[in-house]
Amino acid sequence: MLHAVVMAGGSGTRFWPESREGKPKQLLPLTGGKPMIAETLDRLRPLIPPERTWVVCGAAQAEGILEACPDLAEAQLIVEPCRRNTAACAGLAALVIAGEDPEAILAVLPADHAISPPEAFQDALEAAAHAARMPETLVTFGIPPTRPATGYGYIRRGAECGEFGGARAWKVDRFSEKPDAPTARTFLEEGSYLWNAGIFVWGAETLLMEIHRHLPGLAAGLESLKPSLARGDFKEAIATLYPTLESISVDYGILEKAEKVVVMEASFDWSDLGSWDSLWEESEKDADGNAAVLPAGGAIVAKDSSGVLAYSSEAQTIALLGVENLIVVRTPDVVLVARRDRAEEVKALVERLEAEGRGDLLK
Amino acid sequence: MLHAVVMAGGSGTRFWPESREGKPKQLLPLTGGKPMIAETLDRLRPLIPPERTWVVCGAAQAEGILEACPDLAEAQLIVEPCRRNTAACAGLAALVIAGEDPEAILAVLPADHAISPPEAFQDALEAAAHAARMPETLVTFGIPPTRPATGYGYIRRGAECGEFGGARAWKVDRFSEKPDAPTARTFLEEGSYLWNAGIFVWGAETLLMEIHRHLPGLAAGLESLKPSLARGDFKEAIATLYPTLESISVDYGILEKAEKVVVMEASFDWSDLGSWDSLWEESEKDADGNAAVLPAGGAIVAKDSSGVLAYSSEAQTIALLGVENLIVVRTPDVVLVARRDRAEEVKALVERLEAEGRGDLLK
Repeated sequence: MLHAVVMAGGSGTRFWPESREGKPKQLLPLTGGKPMIAETLDRLRPLIPPERTWVVCGAAQAEGILEACPDLAEAQLIVEPCRRNTAACAGLAALVIAGEDPEAILAVLPADHAISPPEAFQDALEAAAHAARMPETLVTFGIPPTRPATGYGYIRRGAECGEFGGARAWKVDRFSEKPDAPTARTFLEEGSYLWNAGIFVWGAETLLMEIHRHLPGLAAGLESLKPSLARGDFKEAIATLYPTLESISVDYGILEKAEKVVVMEASFDWSDLGSWDSLWEESEKDADGNAAVLPAGGAIVAKDSSGVLAYSSEAQTIALLGVENLIVVRTPDVVLVARRDRAEEVKALVERLEAEGRGDLLK
Repeated sequence: MLHAVVMAGGSGTRFWPESREGKPKQLLPLTGGKPMIAETLDRLRPLIPPERTWVVCGAAQAEGILEACPDLAEAQLIVEPCRRNTAACAGLAALVIAGEDPEAILAVLPADHAISPPEAFQDALEAAAHAARMPETLVTFGIPPTRPATGYGYIRRGAECGEFGGARAWKVDRFSEKPDAPTARTFLEEGSYLWNAGIFVWGAETLLMEIHRHLPGLAAGLESLKPSLARGDFKEAIATLYPTLESISVDYGILEKAEKVVVMEASFDWSDLGSWDSLWEESEKDADGNAAVLPAGGAIVAKDSSGVLAYSSEAQTIALLGVENLIVVRTPDVVLVARRDRAEEVKALVERLEAEGRGDLLK
């Protein structure tokens, strides 16, 4: 059966001041009326029911996630005692789910990406699930790049290896981490590079086997949890084990080393919504390129202004006069005004606030 | 005796969204902890006691003014039923005060200017009161210009006509309305032009006589109020009369035509605080030229930002990243972000909001 593993452990400091420690990006309604994680689950629903939907998160996020996702039972939460990157996260989910359904195929995806239309995404997951039934196969999704982005990892596709549900799959030639700008331009020109969407489909047992091959430390750790899964003291066991695990991404720790990794080209629109700027990119804009992400009753009033993202968590007015390419974010205790092309540095601003003892603004 | 006539009828749309119909500029704490009108009265206090301080305002502002100025008795308010510019305002005040004190000398000044230090201002008023005791003399204040401002009227000084309390006075050669930029530069180079501060000192009876000479319609209207002043039905009489009066400034209607108008050079710092930009000009700034006008508990957090005015009516944080020369204003229902050099256009933005049926944002 196809299960979903939604990775929801992120803290999302790049959406400060709206995202906070207790209210990370996946709990914000950045792309619609609902928190992003609820949009993510809605998008999965026609394909994967709640009882096969699993959410991996930290203890701090559990309550907010259950509140945001009313159809999610608490038993579907896999709570990490601390963050240990995606290899541990995916391995833990595979262990837990394989215990219930050894044949499980897992669609592993972040809780906070913007993806549309849902139907195309569902078709793509279904096709990928077919591909993932080939022996020892790990499936990734590649997004055809539209610009020389430096904020994404890239996947170079190699030989074609079949068609699944009408979607073509290629053997992965290689993974590249976030490139510098000249390299990104080369990738775009070369034509066979795709953005790594961070969305994966694989058999639970296949992943555990690959972990055994390439991350023996993690494999041993996961193996040690098995008795506690049966006994019911899983929570205590994981609390002891988890801090000792290596922090490594599934891309770097497994995908770059595994033999049978395929990439399927996405037929859906995708953004990782990595910053306020990418929210502007993804939002509907008026004729002057201003985007308003405001609750009902909120308004933007713009005079001679363009390229602005206006965001407020409450139904207020954002008025602009003669300004360009800004991000204006209002929350109950902060107004942020930033140059849009420096949105990535919001993270650095948050780090500075922390260093300056303004932790009150981050909670 | 020296009386103060504080003109407090302005609506101050140029400080929207902080200034509103019910909370005009003179009621905002733009320069310190107190509303500007309270700062203005405090500045007068050592020279002029509450019982000789008069405030001319509209009915809509009366309550807010009494609240802002606890030492002001309601009997000291002169309420205009509608606005008819400064000639009518000054004439009305002269009529009311001359009824109590025919020898009264009036210091007529706006409620919402930024002036410091108070001692220099008090000395200047005292000196001007001496000058105003010369027969039929109207005294104005001129500010030595520091830039070719196009937002102020100018006064050209003529022959020197004496020294009063250590301050020199000149006969006014002529008044000039707000000039265009080339003319303003000529004025600055020429050396004998001063900014018209809109602050006047004259005898109540002297002004009434000049009104009689140059604005006979206003003189007749004021004359018609006299019986009601005695009878006690002044409020009804003024409500009938006022809408029929000509709307003309005291500068244009009287000062430009009167014979004996003198100008005294101000020894105090002055700004009419005509816009958010001039509030930035007048405010203390950090090394990057950022000014924070925030209540206690409010903070500005700036990274690679300069020349910004950050204003909030509540104790919140305004965070800036990579932005320059902006005005950022937060109120309970609006955030305004404007280019600082376009602050004058806030007025136009307000007019547009009114036209677009967003009067809710102006109240």
